[in-house]
Amino acid sequence: MAEAAQPIAPEGAKARVMVAGVTGYTGALSAWLVWHHPRLELVRITGRSEQGRLLSDLYPRYQVPLEVTEPGVEAFEDADAGIVAYPHGASAPVVAEMRGMGLSVVDLSADFRLQDLPTYERFYGEHGAPELLDGAVYGLPELNREQIREADLVAGPGCYPTAALLALAPLAEAGLIEDVVIDAKSGVSGAGRNGGEATSFVGVTENVYPYKPSGHRHRPEIIEKLGLLAPEGTGAKHLTFVPHLVPVDQGELVSCYVHTAGDLSQADLDGIYAERYDGEPFVNLVGSPPGMRDVRSTNRCHIQPLVGDDRVIVFSALDNLWKGSAGQAIQSLNLMLDIEETTGL
Amino acid sequence: MAEAAQPIAPEGAKARVMVAGVTGYTGALSAWLVWHHPRLELVRITGRSEQGRLLSDLYPRYQVPLEVTEPGVEAFEDADAGIVAYPHGASAPVVAEMRGMGLSVVDLSADFRLQDLPTYERFYGEHGAPELLDGAVYGLPELNREQIREADLVAGPGCYPTAALLALAPLAEAGLIEDVVIDAKSGVSGAGRNGGEATSFVGVTENVYPYKPSGHRHRPEIIEKLGLLAPEGTGAKHLTFVPHLVPVDQGELVSCYVHTAGDLSQADLDGIYAERYDGEPFVNLVGSPPGMRDVRSTNRCHIQPLVGDDRVIVFSALDNLWKGSAGQAIQSLNLMLDIEETTGL
Amino acid sequence: MAEAAQPIAPEGAKARVMVAGVTGYTGALSAWLVWHHPRLELVRITGRSEQGRLLSDLYPRYQVPLEVTEPGVEAFEDADAGIVAYPHGASAPVVAEMRGMGLSVVDLSADFRLQDLPTYERFYGEHGAPELLDGAVYGLPELNREQIREADLVAGPGCYPTAALLALAPLAEAGLIEDVVIDAKSGVSGAGRNGGEATSFVGVTENVYPYKPSGHRHRPEIIEKLGLLAPEGTGAKHLTFVPHLVPVDQGELVSCYVHTAGDLSQADLDGIYAERYDGEPFVNLVGSPPGMRDVRSTNRCHIQPLVGDDRVIVFSALDNLWKGSAGQAIQSLNLMLDIEETTGL
Amino acid sequence: MAEAAQPIAPEGAKARVMVAGVTGYTGALSAWLVWHHPRLELVRITGRSEQGRLLSDLYPRYQVPLEVTEPGVEAFEDADAGIVAYPHGASAPVVAEMRGMGLSVVDLSADFRLQDLPTYERFYGEHGAPELLDGAVYGLPELNREQIREADLVAGPGCYPTAALLALAPLAEAGLIEDVVIDAKSGVSGAGRNGGEATSFVGVTENVYPYKPSGHRHRPEIIEKLGLLAPEGTGAKHLTFVPHLVPVDQGELVSCYVHTAGDLSQADLDGIYAERYDGEPFVNLVGSPPGMRDVRSTNRCHIQPLVGDDRVIVFSALDNLWKGSAGQAIQSLNLMLDIEETTGL
Repeated sequence: MAEAAQPIAPEGAKARVMVAGVTGYTGALSAWLVWHHPRLELVRITGRSEQGRLLSDLYPRYQVPLEVTEPGVEAFEDADAGIVAYPHGASAPVVAEMRGMGLSVVDLSADFRLQDLPTYERFYGEHGAPELLDGAVYGLPELNREQIREADLVAGPGCYPTAALLALAPLAEAGLIEDVVIDAKSGVSGAGRNGGEATSFVGVTENVYPYKPSGHRHRPEIIEKLGLLAPEGTGAKHLTFVPHLVPVDQGELVSCYVHTAGDLSQADLDGIYAERYDGEPFVNLVGSPPGMRDVRSTNRCHIQPLVGDDRVIVFSALDNLWKGSAGQAIQSLNLMLDIEETTGL
Repeated sequence: MAEAAQPIAPEGAKARVMVAGVTGYTGALSAWLVWHHPRLELVRITGRSEQGRLLSDLYPRYQVPLEVTEPGVEAFEDADAGIVAYPHGASAPVVAEMRGMGLSVVDLSADFRLQDLPTYERFYGEHGAPELLDGAVYGLPELNREQIREADLVAGPGCYPTAALLALAPLAEAGLIEDVVIDAKSGVSGAGRNGGEATSFVGVTENVYPYKPSGHRHRPEIIEKLGLLAPEGTGAKHLTFVPHLVPVDQGELVSCYVHTAGDLSQADLDGIYAERYDGEPFVNLVGSPPGMRDVRSTNRCHIQPLVGDDRVIVFSALDNLWKGSAGQAIQSLNLMLDIEETTGL
Repeated sequence: MAEAAQPIAPEGAKARVMVAGVTGYTGALSAWLVWHHPRLELVRITGRSEQGRLLSDLYPRYQVPLEVTEPGVEAFEDADAGIVAYPHGASAPVVAEMRGMGLSVVDLSADFRLQDLPTYERFYGEHGAPELLDGAVYGLPELNREQIREADLVAGPGCYPTAALLALAPLAEAGLIEDVVIDAKSGVSGAGRNGGEATSFVGVTENVYPYKPSGHRHRPEIIEKLGLLAPEGTGAKHLTFVPHLVPVDQGELVSCYVHTAGDLSQADLDGIYAERYDGEPFVNLVGSPPGMRDVRSTNRCHIQPLVGDDRVIVFSALDNLWKGSAGQAIQSLNLMLDIEETTGL
Repeated sequence: MAEAAQPIAPEGAKARVMVAGVTGYTGALSAWLVWHHPRLELVRITGRSEQGRLLSDLYPRYQVPLEVTEPGVEAFEDADAGIVAYPHGASAPVVAEMRGMGLSVVDLSADFRLQDLPTYERFYGEHGAPELLDGAVYGLPELNREQIREADLVAGPGCYPTAALLALAPLAEAGLIEDVVIDAKSGVSGAGRNGGEATSFVGVTENVYPYKPSGHRHRPEIIEKLGLLAPEGTGAKHLTFVPHLVPVDQGELVSCYVHTAGDLSQADLDGIYAERYDGEPFVNLVGSPPGMRDVRSTNRCHIQPLVGDDRVIVFSALDNLWKGSAGQAIQSLNLMLDIEETTGL
């Protein structure tokens, strides 16, 4: 396993990675990304169902000729690192086991995203490995790059928080957010693979509708992380977050409407964002409204901040399966394993 | 033509209606609705192009076996009433001509929507018939039913104002709106028939993007009409309106985020909306988030008001071609012609 | 119930209709069509699940404020006629019960479509009411109009046979078909409501794929019915039928490739089809290739026969939920109840 | 330019490639593929419009920061090879110029696909550079790999012929095809970027329709190439080709219905295809019906041959922009430049 003194994957070598939970969309894409990654070797894929089937049969678009195997301790023995794509709650005990065997882990569930345990318990129920919370790092490289490099356990953010936080971080860090509405539009794969009727083609095509318009569990995550960015005494007094389902398979667009502390000109805004994201390989500041298609099947996030009518508006577009999940997991894993951050993406 | 003393279409008879501008989506649907209307007779359809072609050839879904004819005075001679579906600016002179020949007119362009001429000129350019502005009635029957009954010229609202005003009118009339964000999602037909690349299938599918995110011309229309509803001394201090294009052909969903004057409980909110829309044939208050599909190809508007996180939220869904345009035109025409309001819809 | 001597619904009166199985797409649409039908009264809707819920809650697009009730004998007591939208196999016993109580029945399952019992058993299993097979009429009014008028039990054809038979009947009746390939493209609602992953949005969007490419159970139905139309000694020696799923909710397009007995000119072909379908209210012969959108949410079938390269080609488009199922059920019911055939459609 | 004696791109070096016609879909994707190709350097992109704009502005999904420049001789000076994505007819003179300057060329238009000049002229008009026809190689590597290696001018096949020929080649080479129907379903990008209303979102969504159902110009191309494969005295006596537009942006599925000479078992069929495509990097024989999504944004072609009802059926799925055009161009270019065939794909 990883020790500071000797890198898992010295230049030229490959780190051995297993992916747990490949039957779902994000696990399957994670496996495919590892499979094609020049510095990673995909040593095993596990699933709680579909065992014995090839990933390329389950997902013909992902031509990975490995069999889905049973999860369990032996699945971790030959790996240096793992990506876990289990549902919330089911993930924590598996992660604990993997950490116990010395694997570096990127977990894609909500289990290690929130620092505040009571908030976690209110939205997700009992926590399966609370002792690991302290050491977990929130896996948004644009905010926590250095901590991720040092981490053994990274909690990949959900797609909504990724899009919203990248949109709002520059304003939050400057102490400028007073009140914000986040209106999010998400593709159907964000709801996972077994959505039943709500995600059926007939229910979704030629349709757009809000869902979970109050009390959505990504709201406390956004609030916690914005709070960590905001200088003492600043921060949003009101934050409303409402997701909508749109007839798109992969993609996410977040429209943020902000009352700022003090008036900002377009030049001010452009300056703040340009400075904040200068050199970021996966954040593009764009001059016209970003669209989901622009970033489809990429790890990029396109952001446009603008002074709108009566409010500052920030649009942020990404692919929920890539930058919103599996792509970002690879980005974090690269950092954890001392591999160039953009490799394989 | 219509005179107060003798109804155009006494019980059992049919009013003669012509539709100008049937090559576009809203004109074509208007013609189809008139064609199937039990109390209206479609006497003529005109277009600035495609003359000599059958509407059923132009739009196979609308099996109306009438030829598109040239617009011009003779087109109006045999009609009691007309629906005009010309672009902004081109409409006013045609409407003036029709009014001069005594026709009752529902105009679907922006030309007679705004009472304030300078605002019109700022957003649309010179006005072709400013002398008619005073007599024009804003064609939202749920707000102006009695004036529409008496009107000879009705200006059909655009789809965004229809959805937004129906969502917000109850709060505005109660003097409760302090600040509002209107995030609108619109199907592609709202952009008209000749949108070029921006409305091509390849540009729209698997995509969602904002457009005209500031300075959109429907914003002053919404502000003017909300202002007329709000009691003196009340009214939104901030109003932000941002439309987004979604991969849907017909449909519109408006999400309104409101800071209200004073706290409202869900019961308060439900009471306000129930009372306001009691008996309205085309407004349904719904208990779960409305979707575009629920109202597709109908004249209904589905509205859900709810106390959300940190804000009141009101969702409003309609079909932009029906309640947002051609359907509502028929609703207004029914009122103008003393026909039961829901006939033919 | 219906007796020849006294019509169920004398001019001005309404026949009382119940719909069994409204939780699926075709049952729900059938109920909605009956609800809006000027000569029918919807007296009851039943479902094997969702009991106690309003149809308008299950399907917000169908604003029918009736509760789903349990199926059972009492459900049939107050009805003159019934439409049954149960799955194959489950339908026959219910139909038998309804017939026993004197109701006229249109059944939308496969249970009474095939005259040949062994063929039924091979594709669908044991038959629940074989004694009713003899009296059942195949519910394609364009082929069996007079028998449907006299029938008490009508078996509504599936969407594929409807489209294929309307396309091919004129050639079959003329004894001209020697060899035919039927390549069908169907919208997702044709697969029913609970298709699971195969009909999920993510699985269907940006996708087209064949399914059940050999041995599809609609093939023997098409073969049997074409055989009944073909003069002795003629008929297709080879018939291949392959359905494909396309990312469309409602719609069906069938492309038929025919080797004919003897050469036909385009004029021959046009003559044959024009004569055969002259006066048919729901069959339109079109001069350019028909599209699914042209007939969406209508009971029409658009057909284009043409002399193609090396073969005669016939295209046929309809809406699988309307002309391919619920709409055609109403058309048949109208005939059975001595109501003008096009009423309510 | 390329000379047999010294490879353009010796191991480790990059060949300099320009792409002409990047404003259309296939040119833009070609440029993007070259940009990311480890052994190619994109030295210039040209367009007949949009000059001075960045490709990343024209197509935000393709983040290539090069400006579109004017086509012209100087555009070719610094390049070893070129990909030409001009419309039919416009391409030939440009290709001639490039060849004159010594560039190796892959042309994506129809101009060099047909060996038979009169056939070309009948379907496309006068030819701009007939003197180059003899030396042009048809760019389907699975059929012509060795000739492509030696070629200076390769004519990339259209997407329909690619899919159809890969599906049918094994049967043709075995002299087994007697009669074939090719029913093709194509995504909208196959129609190019400026399709107007026919390719608008509103015209395409929830729609499927045949187009150009007889006399399509890809039919003679398929016939010519199948003829070259078939042993003397064999070959299809009848070939019908009908394309359909489906609501998909990228993708193509071809369903081939074949009467074979003699009966074939499934084992025979599997054997023929397995042997023919053994080791082909981009052809996958699949055990269940292939879908467009399975190959989206890849250079793969998925093929399933099966003994169907009364006929042999072969399905073939690919991405029309990749294996059907730009991806295959790179595959050919790799061969021409002595680069490993799969590099950059």
